[in-house]
Order: sequence, then structure tokens, then C-alpha cells
Amino acid sequence: MTLVNPHGSSALKPLLLQGDALASERARAATLPRLQVSSREAGDVIMLGIGGFTPLDGFMTHSDWQGVCDGMKMANGLFWPIPVTLSTDDESIKAGSNIALADGGTGEILATMKVSEQYVIDKAHECMQVFKTTDLEHPGVKMVMAQGKYNLAGPIKVLSTGGFKEKYGAQFMTPAETRAKFEQLGWKRIAAFQTRNPMHRSHEYLAKIAIETMDGVLVHSLLGNLKPGDIPAEVRSEAIEVLVENYFAPNTVIQAGYPLDMRYAGPREALLHALFRQNYGCSHLIVGRDHAGVGDYYGPFDAQKIFDEIPKGSLETVNMNIDWTFWCSKCGGMASQRTCPHTKDDRILLSGTKVRSMLSEGQDLPVEFSRPEVAAVLKKYYQGLTAEQNVKVELKGHSAA
Amino acid sequence: MTLVNPHGSSALKPLLLQGDALASERARAATLPRLQVSSREAGDVIMLGIGGFTPLDGFMTHSDWQGVCDGMKMANGLFWPIPVTLSTDDESIKAGSNIALADGGTGEILATMKVSEQYVIDKAHECMQVFKTTDLEHPGVKMVMAQGKYNLAGPIKVLSTGGFKEKYGAQFMTPAETRAKFEQLGWKRIAAFQTRNPMHRSHEYLAKIAIETMDGVLVHSLLGNLKPGDIPAEVRSEAIEVLVENYFAPNTVIQAGYPLDMRYAGPREALLHALFRQNYGCSHLIVGRDHAGVGDYYGPFDAQKIFDEIPKGSLETVNMNIDWTFWCSKCGGMASQRTCPHTKDDRILLSGTKVRSMLSEGQDLPVEFSRPEVAAVLKKYYQGLTAEQNVKVELKGHSAA
Repeated sequence: MTLVNPHGSSALKPLLLQGDALASERARAATLPRLQVSSREAGDVIMLGIGGFTPLDGFMTHSDWQGVCDGMKMANGLFWPIPVTLSTDDESIKAGSNIALADGGTGEILATMKVSEQYVIDKAHECMQVFKTTDLEHPGVKMVMAQGKYNLAGPIKVLSTGGFKEKYGAQFMTPAETRAKFEQLGWKRIAAFQTRNPMHRSHEYLAKIAIETMDGVLVHSLLGNLKPGDIPAEVRSEAIEVLVENYFAPNTVIQAGYPLDMRYAGPREALLHALFRQNYGCSHLIVGRDHAGVGDYYGPFDAQKIFDEIPKGSLETVNMNIDWTFWCSKCGGMASQRTCPHTKDDRILLSGTKVRSMLSEGQDLPVEFSRPEVAAVLKKYYQGLTAEQNVKVELKGHSAA
Repeated sequence: MTLVNPHGSSALKPLLLQGDALASERARAATLPRLQVSSREAGDVIMLGIGGFTPLDGFMTHSDWQGVCDGMKMANGLFWPIPVTLSTDDESIKAGSNIALADGGTGEILATMKVSEQYVIDKAHECMQVFKTTDLEHPGVKMVMAQGKYNLAGPIKVLSTGGFKEKYGAQFMTPAETRAKFEQLGWKRIAAFQTRNPMHRSHEYLAKIAIETMDGVLVHSLLGNLKPGDIPAEVRSEAIEVLVENYFAPNTVIQAGYPLDMRYAGPREALLHALFRQNYGCSHLIVGRDHAGVGDYYGPFDAQKIFDEIPKGSLETVNMNIDWTFWCSKCGGMASQRTCPHTKDDRILLSGTKVRSMLSEGQDLPVEFSRPEVAAVLKKYYQGLTAEQNVKVELKGHSAA
């Protein structure tokens, strides 16, 4: 037994250039017309760069887009659940154009692209297929609707990882790096735990259920482009680190981050999360309630059920479903709705708002809800915020991804 | 997705006759020479009768025996980890003989057999291959060494389930019955938890880990032929029942029993346990430390490792490995050596001897070790024993199978 294969390929296909090739392509990029890309598009470029989107060689064509929207299949038949597309309003960029893709925020040139096709999409159709709604309140719909008039397809050469390595250091691991680490540890069965937040006991329990029967867990955090009020990556990372040090057996958890923006596509995004975790070498993705969902657009178990609906063999990485978890005083331990027969009154449940206000006021969280070491890290952070910053803190900041 | 297939067959093959065929074969059996069979052989006959040993049609031939001993494969290539053989010292029973198999204890005729082969085996070879030892202190070795001079092969027709249904009622479920129950509940992913003992919190935790990610657990107890001092089936069953009622969510656990005697063959027996659980419709077998072991004959994880050593596709039912489990006060919950980084001093560990003496003396067990409702059932049983009976109680009576 070895690690799962990269998606649709026997080897990772990172599009990031190295050495001389990188230097000469950078020089060439400086001479090309520049297209400013959105945060989502920049994240996709970097994922393509590090091999997280293996085996894609760039942004999707119209027929890829159509196949992915309608049947989660690219033109060549490869399973893919969400379009990976680039857009512009600049109609001068057409098939045959060579362009440089620049980060819309920093201006850094991330990649060069040889445009093979310029096409127009039915955005509402994409939204209905991928998000099951065209409601502009849905943040994923909003992103698609805000795209340029034209989509651009074509292979890209990636020139940068957009400062992630510099900013996040060892936590920014590429798929090749997580695979090497797994092999070094002798791991084969690895569950990815997707998170945007610190881990409280409910998240610790999810991870430990995986560890009980597998080799280890990759705690895989979303890096970059957080929503205003989200807990910063370094605070989250420190909170997770103290948890792992104090409450997990050695060599059972690896903490790492990835650069992709959330789409909030619920079930379809759960499939994308499994797909790129396959590239990172994980055999399983932990899928909890309303994974990658937002608002009430998806049923709580839609993201679990969709794994049974895709054709067998679409992905090697499979879902590990877990229900909502909590401490139950009658159980005298952590449990979920699958294992606890008791009632809400027996369970310790705190809303994100409540947790934030308790921490901001310097109160202790119940030890059944959060480890004291974790709470201390968060308390320090919240108490350091100004009153005004505190108000802005996202209310959903304590739920799992 | 449906239930796993029976072993080596698309349908269960119960050898128990029904209706008129049963009545006429019973009449015929009464006229045949009788062979008294051992407890182990009687258990095998009943397993053959209810389809637990699908697709076998009787006791193994010499070439089956050789293949199973040497390579876990029958003459026809079917995977099988432990010989299923019948023996006698009566040299008059030969190929062509028709005999009745009678329970050595009760005298009841369990089956008829058309003998196809009489053969002599190298018992020491079987013991070395299956048990990895010829030490007569090993109870499985002792059983093989005590067999008759001749093995008898041939197809059998089963006439009785040996009183199990009458004695254990609804708990004695056949593979067809557990499969029907799983289908009725809509279960597909089912873990079998093998036990000979009541369930304390450590066993509850094993079962709950399975339930968190699967459809349900079959708590599958060994019925009949207990060792002197083992907790009787009805006490064990009651103790498990109060646990399930009070601490498991509805429709997540089925309690049932099976008639097979233990061989204590450790790794090879774990494979047999998975094989017949496949016939019962279970997709997984929970394999803990030293599964089906005895003494120090096997390494603690040998029974887990052997599942990686058999050819892929040997069994559809797979192992779910779990380490030794306990309450840890620093974790503030149940854990195993895979998930707890703390020390022995933080863990609540009680030997079987200690548990028995506490219960016999009417003391309460720590709630972190045993649920009060479970302890109450056991306390009532132990306190009802006479002092002399109490001394005989098996010291290992509180470890998992």
C-alpha cells in the first residue's frame, strides 16, 4: 500500500517554474500585457503552481466549463466538480494572446498565460449548477456574477506562490511536501481536516476519531484572504499548535495550510476539497455538517451524500462523514448525534457570539468546550483587540469549515 | 451500494435442511452409524448449517487442509485461514461411509455426512502453521492434538442448530437474519464487535468510534461453551442491553450471538472472524489488541497486521484497527494509545481480578471504567455466586475478545 495517486495522474503536475526557466519566463512576463486577477483567481493560480490542481495545465475551456457545470466532467472525461476559470472585461485579450497574470491586490506577476480561447458563459447557469442558487447574497454566486464578461482559457506557467511561503513559512506545505512528510512518517491512511478556525474540543474529537483508525490527520487550514473578523492565521495556528502539543500523541497530526479561496459551494466544494486533498496525499477528507456551506443553501448532510452520487472511481480520496459533535454530560465524554441518545440540555453548546464575548471579557470557557491552553491563546488575541475591532469579529468565527 | 457479498459466493449457503427434506433426513440419520463430535466440531456444524461458513459444503479434504495450513487457500483457490475439519479414531469410517454426527455433550444428532475421504494429518504442522506453536499449554493446540487419528472429509446435511435458538432466542441470529435486519435499517457499513464479555466503557468507546463513521455496530458475542468462570451469556447480554439502552443512540447497535468455539489462533482467527462476519453482512471487523489471542503467543498487533499480508481481494470485509482504550483524566475523556499523549498515571486501568473482587464485595466501579447500570447488573451476578463459585471465576473475564 502506498499513498493515493494524484488526481487523474501518476505524478503531481506543479506548474511553478524553477531555476533558469523561472528567471527567463519572469523576464518575458515583464514585457507582456498584464491582467489583474481576483483573489479567487490568484488562489487558483497558486494551487496550479504547487500541483494542488493536478492534472490541470491552466484555466478551463468552454467545453470544460460546460462539462464541469453540467456533469462534473471535463471535456477529456476527467472528474472535476467546480469550474476553474479566469475572466476579464478586456475584449482585446483573445485566442493567441500572451499575457501576464498579476495579483489584483499586490500587483505581483504570478503567471504567464497563452490564451487558447476567449468565451462567454451563462453565469446564472454556472451558479445554478454549482451553487444551486443565483441569489446574490450567496458569496460564491456574488463572485461569479462579479466576473468579467469573457472567460479566458489556456495553459499557464506559474512564477510565484504569491508570498505564502514567505508569510506562512513551514505551514505552507505543497502537495509534494505533505506527500514526502507522510512517506517519511510511514503514513498511508491520512484524513484531511479542513478548517478556517481554531480547534475546540468538538474539532479535536473529529480529528481523534480519524486517528483512532488511521495513520494520522492533516489539519489543513485555509490561508490568506480571510473575511474581516476571522481569526488571523498566526493566532489560529498557535491555538492549534498548543492543542496538538498537549492533547495529541506524537506524530499523529501535521498542521499545514493551503492558498485556495472558499467558494461556499457546499456539496460541490466538498468534492473539490477531497480532490485537492488527494493531490496532497490524503486518503480521506473529514466531512462534517454543512461542509463548505453558507447560510441555509444546503441541507446539513448534502456534502456527505454527494460522495455516494458521483461515479465510482471519480476520486481515490473518500469522505469520512461525521455528525455534529459536542460534550454530553450524561455520556461523560465527547459525542455526536450519532452516538449520544441524550438531549440538548445535557450538551455543552456555545454559539460563536457567546464564545467571542466570553473571551473578549476575559472569562474562561468551559473545559468541556475548549482546552484551557487553546482558550488562553484566543483570550490573549481578543483582549488585544480594540473595542471597535472586537465588534467587527465575524460571528461565525467558531464553527468548523 | 449494498451489503458485502457472502464469502466466495453471491448467496449464503446454509446447509440446514428445512421442512420435508429435514424430516426425511432425520429419519434416515436415525439409521446411520453415529460419530460423537467435539464441542468445536459441533460449533462448526452449526455454523455450516446457518450459512456462517458459506461457501463450504462440509468438512475439508486433505488437499484443502494442506492448502489452508500452508497458504490459507483451499484446493479450489478460495481464501480460508483455519482448517475446518472433523476427526475420529474409528478406522471403520472410510470414504463411502454415511454417518450421523451427534453432539458429544447432548447426544443430539446434528447432521448427516457422506464421507468422501479419510486421511491422516501432521497435527504438529497444522499447529505450527495456524497457531505458530505446538505448545500444549495453548488451548487451540491442545484441541488439535486431542483430535482423533483420522480426519474425515465430505459434504454434510445439517439437521439442527443444537438448541441455540431455543436457549438464546432472538439473540441467536443467522447470517440471513442479520442481513435482513441490516437491510431493513438501511445499513451498509457495519462493524462487527467481537466479544465474550460484558462491555465496559473501553468497549463502548470502540463501538462508538465505529458508529461515528459507519451505519451501525453488530455486537457479536460468542454463545455456548464458555470456559468455567466466564460470565454467563444471559448476564452478559443483560449488561450489554442496559448499556445500549442508556448510552447509544437508537438504531445504531444490534446485539447478536454466534455458536463458534474460540481457537485462540490470534491473527489467523482474526481473519476467520472477518470471514464469517462477511457472511453475516458486516463490512468491517473491529480488531483490537491481541484479537483472539491467548497468553503471549502473538504480538499485540499481529492480528491487525495480517490483514495487510493476505492477497488483496481475499475478503470483502476489512479490519478496523483500534489500540488499547481507557479513560484518561488529562484528556478528560476516553482515548487510546493512538490519541492520548499522557501517562499510565493519568489513566483509569483496572485488572479483571480487581474488577471481579470489587463487584463481589459490592463496591462500585469508577464511572470512568464502567457505566453504573452495567456495573449493577454484574454486581448482582457476582454477589449471587457462592464463595466457592467466585474463586473459580476466570481472571481474564473482563478483557475484550
